[in-house]
Amino acid sequence: MKKFSIAKSRRVRSTPYTSRIEAQGVTAYSSYNHMLMPAAFGSLEESYHHLKEHVQVWDVSGERQVEIGGKDSSRLVQLMTCRDLSKSKIGRCYYCPIIDDKAGLINDPVILKLAEDRWWISIADSDVILFAKGLAIGHKFEVTIIEPNINIIAIQGPESFQIMEKIFGKKISKMKFFGFDYFEFQGVKHLIARSGWSKQGGYEVYVENTKVGLALYDHLFEIGKEFNVKPGCPNLIERIESALLSYGNDIDNNDNPLECGLDKYVNLDNDVNFLGKEKLKEISKEGINKKLMGVKIETKEIDVSESIKLYNNKSNLIGELRSGVYSPHFGKVIGIAMIFKPYWNVSQSLKIEINGTNFDGKVCDLPFI
Amino acid sequence: MKKFSIAKSRRVRSTPYTSRIEAQGVTAYSSYNHMLMPAAFGSLEESYHHLKEHVQVWDVSGERQVEIGGKDSSRLVQLMTCRDLSKSKIGRCYYCPIIDDKAGLINDPVILKLAEDRWWISIADSDVILFAKGLAIGHKFEVTIIEPNINIIAIQGPESFQIMEKIFGKKISKMKFFGFDYFEFQGVKHLIARSGWSKQGGYEVYVENTKVGLALYDHLFEIGKEFNVKPGCPNLIERIESALLSYGNDIDNNDNPLECGLDKYVNLDNDVNFLGKEKLKEISKEGINKKLMGVKIETKEIDVSESIKLYNNKSNLIGELRSGVYSPHFGKVIGIAMIFKPYWNVSQSLKIEINGTNFDGKVCDLPFI
Repeated sequence: MKKFSIAKSRRVRSTPYTSRIEAQGVTAYSSYNHMLMPAAFGSLEESYHHLKEHVQVWDVSGERQVEIGGKDSSRLVQLMTCRDLSKSKIGRCYYCPIIDDKAGLINDPVILKLAEDRWWISIADSDVILFAKGLAIGHKFEVTIIEPNINIIAIQGPESFQIMEKIFGKKISKMKFFGFDYFEFQGVKHLIARSGWSKQGGYEVYVENTKVGLALYDHLFEIGKEFNVKPGCPNLIERIESALLSYGNDIDNNDNPLECGLDKYVNLDNDVNFLGKEKLKEISKEGINKKLMGVKIETKEIDVSESIKLYNNKSNLIGELRSGVYSPHFGKVIGIAMIFKPYWNVSQSLKIEINGTNFDGKVCDLPFI
Repeated sequence: MKKFSIAKSRRVRSTPYTSRIEAQGVTAYSSYNHMLMPAAFGSLEESYHHLKEHVQVWDVSGERQVEIGGKDSSRLVQLMTCRDLSKSKIGRCYYCPIIDDKAGLINDPVILKLAEDRWWISIADSDVILFAKGLAIGHKFEVTIIEPNINIIAIQGPESFQIMEKIFGKKISKMKFFGFDYFEFQGVKHLIARSGWSKQGGYEVYVENTKVGLALYDHLFEIGKEFNVKPGCPNLIERIESALLSYGNDIDNNDNPLECGLDKYVNLDNDVNFLGKEKLKEISKEGINKKLMGVKIETKEIDVSESIKLYNNKSNLIGELRSGVYSPHFGKVIGIAMIFKPYWNVSQSLKIEINGTNFDGKVCDLPFI
């Protein structure tokens, strides 16, 4: 595919690490929450293999935080998500679909409970802060809503545990998945979570002190030589193979959580109050008519920059492909697609036109096997 | 400056015109409201001269519409903006700062009044739809809020009047600035406004019927040969020379409208109800401590991808540059900066470090003269 430059400006702003990743060979960016998000360091496939075998350091500053504090903060946070947070614990991360009153998805953040009255919503790419402010104003909630100056460094890959243990001690490798705690570096405490946007394991450091964060960034590369550490970024191949959903790509405001396989984050059984609950009860009763599934396509190349229609052998529209990539593991293109109800059979055959050529494929379950 | 590719995906989606502008030689993109927005067709300076002399057709699909309809629509729209819309007329466009309850800017759209109970908010780059939904839900307003599938084509430049008259007749060249009306092309009515993000004159076609919109796009180039029509996009040089503000670049949520020279769109005198009004009254009484001004810098090159600090001769911080470009008209770099109160004197001298070299400059009023 032909390449185009990204125009930089303050509107799609640089991160504290931008000059470092540019010196380290970043080749492509996307924008994410109005910030530059690295999208490639040369070959996507080389980076994918490296991520699965070693350890990478990622500038994911674009994962902005919406901090909600104050007397009504828990009420507001719960109002925004269909996941029951009534038993949530301080020191834990929660993957939470955020939906509107029509049950349409607005974001799918990880929410960190910092205190009974203080939360960070670690957002995907949409301005959740505006939704939170609108709701808070309308409901006259006593809350403070800000975007703190936090710029996350992610450490991802199987060797992330060793490198982090070397810096922060054994305590960090014993932390459970989606737990978080505070760890000192150069005299400054950092919130570090065992999380990240890959399935290769790792951590996210919520850097509040930029100066020390930059020192940590450099330190990771200094001591990381023995682990073959490299700069990286969320990897399109790895994330699709792992079926990690991407808001704006695979799911959007026209979808509800039940259509996106997020049933286990939907709580309709008790009296917890959230937006879209009545609508979700209706949908749950009537059943859904489309759902997110995997597809495998008999070709080696694809670039998805908008939805691509999928047909069956009789030229009936069966759904749309929303993201896709060549998978070295499967030896073909795999992707995530929204499929209409009559075509949910695994092995349903499909036809897709890519750059004027027709290819065959099959529908499959998610995660891919 | 080193160039980096933009990674395409459905999350930063293509527009109906993307394949056309790529065939026509677009070289750089930005993202705008989660869509690809063309940022350059080769030389910025050549495109600037052409825009000032002839006519260009722009894909500005990224200017999304937030449609607000229903019984309480006027109440909601007024609640979001400090501009008094009580005497607004159907068929007119209104530049309206949108602010939150702290008077911080959230967007600076043009609002179109389609009917007494139907509005389009033609937004700059932030998810105003989420703010509107949050407010509507919290206030239990009877409104419908959607993002319709509208993809604007802008026709900009001094010869835009002739080319549009050739297609739509004399009625269109008689339309007043910021008026809009409906014009037929291939049997389909299009809302066309006399507006656009340049000071060279022109129109914006709010394309709802994509197929006919694409035909119109092609037709503009077919009949536009005699006017030397070219594809283009909002031009960084032209917009800064014209002091057209860019939300996210020059102004953001940490600024209020009075700091941004938007006083004439702030109404504090009657009983119109909008968010942040009490705060703005306070600010108005106490006076502002920073304001948006122009700067001229004695150099020929700059790339602004984050704020750059400005100092006086005594090394005191006097403000920050937020956007800047080499201006052929002034023969030096000009820019838009937020300047602290003690340094508001026109001709206040300034020092700026650009890529490790120090340059001198001066503060000036906006618009540039």
